[in-house]
Amino acid sequence: MTTEKLRKQIEFIKEIDKIKYIQRRTKLFNSDRRENDAEHSWHLAIMALVLSEHANCDVDILKVIKMLLIHDIVEIDAGDTFLYDQNKNHENTVEEMKSAKRIFGILPDKQAEEFFQIWTEFEEGNSNEAKFAKSMDRLEPLLQNVSNNGGTWKEFGVNYETVYNKKKVIKKGSTELWKYAKKLILDSVEKGFLLK
Amino acid sequence: MTTEKLRKQIEFIKEIDKIKYIQRRTKLFNSDRRENDAEHSWHLAIMALVLSEHANCDVDILKVIKMLLIHDIVEIDAGDTFLYDQNKNHENTVEEMKSAKRIFGILPDKQAEEFFQIWTEFEEGNSNEAKFAKSMDRLEPLLQNVSNNGGTWKEFGVNYETVYNKKKVIKKGSTELWKYAKKLILDSVEKGFLLK
Repeated sequence: MTTEKLRKQIEFIKEIDKIKYIQRRTKLFNSDRRENDAEHSWHLAIMALVLSEHANCDVDILKVIKMLLIHDIVEIDAGDTFLYDQNKNHENTVEEMKSAKRIFGILPDKQAEEFFQIWTEFEEGNSNEAKFAKSMDRLEPLLQNVSNNGGTWKEFGVNYETVYNKKKVIKKGSTELWKYAKKLILDSVEKGFLLK
Repeated sequence: MTTEKLRKQIEFIKEIDKIKYIQRRTKLFNSDRRENDAEHSWHLAIMALVLSEHANCDVDILKVIKMLLIHDIVEIDAGDTFLYDQNKNHENTVEEMKSAKRIFGILPDKQAEEFFQIWTEFEEGNSNEAKFAKSMDRLEPLLQNVSNNGGTWKEFGVNYETVYNKKKVIKKGSTELWKYAKKLILDSVEKGFLLK
């Protein structure tokens, strides 16, 4: 007989399938096909695995991966906000909080609390794990835009200063990766992918 | 200055983007849109997180997640093999081995070895982690087919016995989840989603 606990877990597993329909602005590498949130989250989790040695501090990599796997689930209700959107704040919104409560709340109580706590910790960005996870979240679209000769920067007329300011969050998670990212940004200006 | 190590890691991160183009047969929940390998891998990793308490043995959940995140990367070269394909064996093939060596081999040596070892352990299916990871890999498409009133079972005329035999692998990872899965399979026969 299916326990109530397992029933809730399966319901959550079905619900989060909807993330596969949430389209981001950024496109896949060397591509004009937009990425969805499931693909993005998968990529960030592997990036964290591969790049963890560059984190500024020792991080609990399992926690980082949990953060990255679930960080965009709230967008099922709240939608994706473009990093360079000038009208809508990208930071933790009321809708996202509501969505987190609804979706993580499908899980059995203890798990619901754990997932909600991990998501909140990521959003707040204060712990070493959250800082490193956020640096992955900023690095992936940077790599994608560079591979697409400017990608969404060109498409939406984003300039060097704006990109630099949004991307410097990477430094909080990894000085090493920020050095690399800065070089990519400067190279992009030189190549005409990004306006100074 | 970018180190050779970081250069290899970034090259790997770019290469694995191609998994987002590998289409599976199975369709998303309540949908006629086929799932790709990145979406599938993301979903399995979260399923493992959510369902780990049902594993037959204590498992190193970080290792299970690593397995699930990378298990289909070899399909970038080898392609997806349909579980019910009657002409092509789904088991570890020569092409997959070659692909694993090429793609994991992009990473710095130590990481390349680690990823290759984890992938091999998953493929062999002997460790507790591999057994539980494989039960996730079998459970997701079962849930999807049930949500799609038979999905690929109906589409490709797969019968009860074949499904039962392919899915019983779940039991090695979790008796509890196998009980649940068996019930879903029997219900599917009753509802006419699956031919006896």
